[in-house]
Amino acid sequence: MAYMNLDYPKLRELIHKIFCAYGFTQKDSDTITDSLLNADLCAVESHGVQRMIRYHLAIGEGMVDINAQPEIVHETPISAVIDAKDAMGQVVGFSAMQLAIEKAKKSGMGMVAVRNSNHYGMAGWYAKMAAENDLIGFCMTNSEAIMVPTFASKPFLGTNPIAVAMPADPEPFLFDAATTVVTRGKLEVYTKNGEPIPENWTLDEFGQPCTDAGRIVSNITNKVGGGIVPLGGSTEETSGYKGYGFGMVCELFTSMMAGGPPSHLSYKKPHKAETSQCFWAMDYGVFGNKEEIKANFSQMLDELRALPKAEGQSRIYIHGEKEIESTARKKVEGIPVNEKTFRELSDIAKELGIDPIPLIGEKFIG
Amino acid sequence: MAYMNLDYPKLRELIHKIFCAYGFTQKDSDTITDSLLNADLCAVESHGVQRMIRYHLAIGEGMVDINAQPEIVHETPISAVIDAKDAMGQVVGFSAMQLAIEKAKKSGMGMVAVRNSNHYGMAGWYAKMAAENDLIGFCMTNSEAIMVPTFASKPFLGTNPIAVAMPADPEPFLFDAATTVVTRGKLEVYTKNGEPIPENWTLDEFGQPCTDAGRIVSNITNKVGGGIVPLGGSTEETSGYKGYGFGMVCELFTSMMAGGPPSHLSYKKPHKAETSQCFWAMDYGVFGNKEEIKANFSQMLDELRALPKAEGQSRIYIHGEKEIESTARKKVEGIPVNEKTFRELSDIAKELGIDPIPLIGEKFIG
Repeated sequence: MAYMNLDYPKLRELIHKIFCAYGFTQKDSDTITDSLLNADLCAVESHGVQRMIRYHLAIGEGMVDINAQPEIVHETPISAVIDAKDAMGQVVGFSAMQLAIEKAKKSGMGMVAVRNSNHYGMAGWYAKMAAENDLIGFCMTNSEAIMVPTFASKPFLGTNPIAVAMPADPEPFLFDAATTVVTRGKLEVYTKNGEPIPENWTLDEFGQPCTDAGRIVSNITNKVGGGIVPLGGSTEETSGYKGYGFGMVCELFTSMMAGGPPSHLSYKKPHKAETSQCFWAMDYGVFGNKEEIKANFSQMLDELRALPKAEGQSRIYIHGEKEIESTARKKVEGIPVNEKTFRELSDIAKELGIDPIPLIGEKFIG
Repeated sequence: MAYMNLDYPKLRELIHKIFCAYGFTQKDSDTITDSLLNADLCAVESHGVQRMIRYHLAIGEGMVDINAQPEIVHETPISAVIDAKDAMGQVVGFSAMQLAIEKAKKSGMGMVAVRNSNHYGMAGWYAKMAAENDLIGFCMTNSEAIMVPTFASKPFLGTNPIAVAMPADPEPFLFDAATTVVTRGKLEVYTKNGEPIPENWTLDEFGQPCTDAGRIVSNITNKVGGGIVPLGGSTEETSGYKGYGFGMVCELFTSMMAGGPPSHLSYKKPHKAETSQCFWAMDYGVFGNKEEIKANFSQMLDELRALPKAEGQSRIYIHGEKEIESTARKKVEGIPVNEKTFRELSDIAKELGIDPIPLIGEKFIG
């Protein structure tokens, strides 16, 4: 499918106008827009503006309550549980991580669990907030059931990503990984592009490997069975039970600590996502001199970069590096948006009375 | 290679006598013996008594100092850093997790990082200690460099396991996974048995897949290059960078927080392991009513067990279940020990002036 590069500030302005038009405040619209555009800047198209159509539908049907007032329902000096009351995931997520950061600065550790939330974009975006405050950040979210546990034939866990960020020079370490072998968003991109997926990513409704992303996405939506395999695959030989285990750890710290439904019971009530998330910040000063720890870590990263390369490879990447470089590049060159997403954005804008043409043009329209 | 079942109490008595003979106290010998035998009971042969020969050599050459007095070098209400001073990993590990548990009971969270330690057995054994105290347990350790990061040709990270335990009914959830696709211990067992390993486990010194476990173990020992691939494999398609990322997270919380050398710089000085570990305990009561949280989690596990099974499979395993059932079975049926390990145990016992025959017989000797 055809892609075109859209100017970053103009695309940002369009998305921001759309969220303001829904009724979000300027500040909340900034938060949501930055979360979405950050994914595109990082080249994680699956979590970027291609998802606008899903947010648009969720807001339209009331799954996302733009007037929600999230409430702290339990609190200690190092922890809190927030009932998001169907708030936009990015809005409650941003404030939950801010609360975790405050607690970490006072008590060394801040762990905030959120229930009754919605899709919140990339987990790494929140973990990075902690790193920007010279803290270690953790963030996880559950999601609609999509991962088939080892030896099962139906999905039970979500893509259940785990993100960890740690300050370093010159740039923070930022690990952000679904505990499935790939994400649903990646399947959506393959579906939009009409491309086949590798054999070892998904299982069909009969538990057989499948290369048709559209069929898998449709099976998941229609709850027919099958889904995505855990990191490590579907067999014991390549340790698929480890990816399934990391997915369980994510479920434990999201739904179980937040008091929300686990992945397989979320998205069950009409127009309710009931997603659970966790936001942790840790002051690594509880382990000693922060400057020393950060310098040691930065040095280790340098030694890792200097390691001999595999044949045909010229570089070893630290987690987060590709995203930082992509961001710098795309801020200059623009953000690639595919035709289908472009049309969706144009249609959403028009529906809300916003003229998209001055901001993103009309290349794909006609 | 031939295996025979050894009576559990008698094998335990032999191992305990051996550690007492080295000069460990009765109590420390109990701790070490229980850690080792627990691995065999759990059917994790790689971390069980087959490793006695390596501990024996480490004690003999002074890598393990049986008289070490570990020291707390940094402390806050929620954290501590311990310099193990080359203590036996199990001895310092047991007391580090006890300290983490005390802190969690008082402050909600206890995070203890240990440096200058030695191999400590299974990470899960310590995580389980927290679960037995109605807390969530985490445990990680770095180790000699063995994992080849994505696009590298030399090992940099250890097998770097991550273990997480959470109380549940009827039994705790206990996840314990190397962030490599398999462990070095598993390669040692394949080497002892002379069996080929699957193609997608290791890379040889040229960065090519290799099925000869002995060659890989020898390459690692002689630092020739190559090693074990991360969970997810060595390619981007199956997300090998995720296993590599989880390995980095383990390194961050072990060596970096403990102030010890990272995996690739450990085992570099003569007769020094300089292993780093972390032991965390968390009171999940910081998120609300513990009985409710535990009941919700136990219910989720029941729902997972009841999921439809993949064709040809009759059961979905929760992490830790296989180990609990194996333990019950082996306490009755005995612990399978292979001929090579049996001979090693007999020789060690005799060297220390202990007659092994009344405890484990002499079947393989002649």
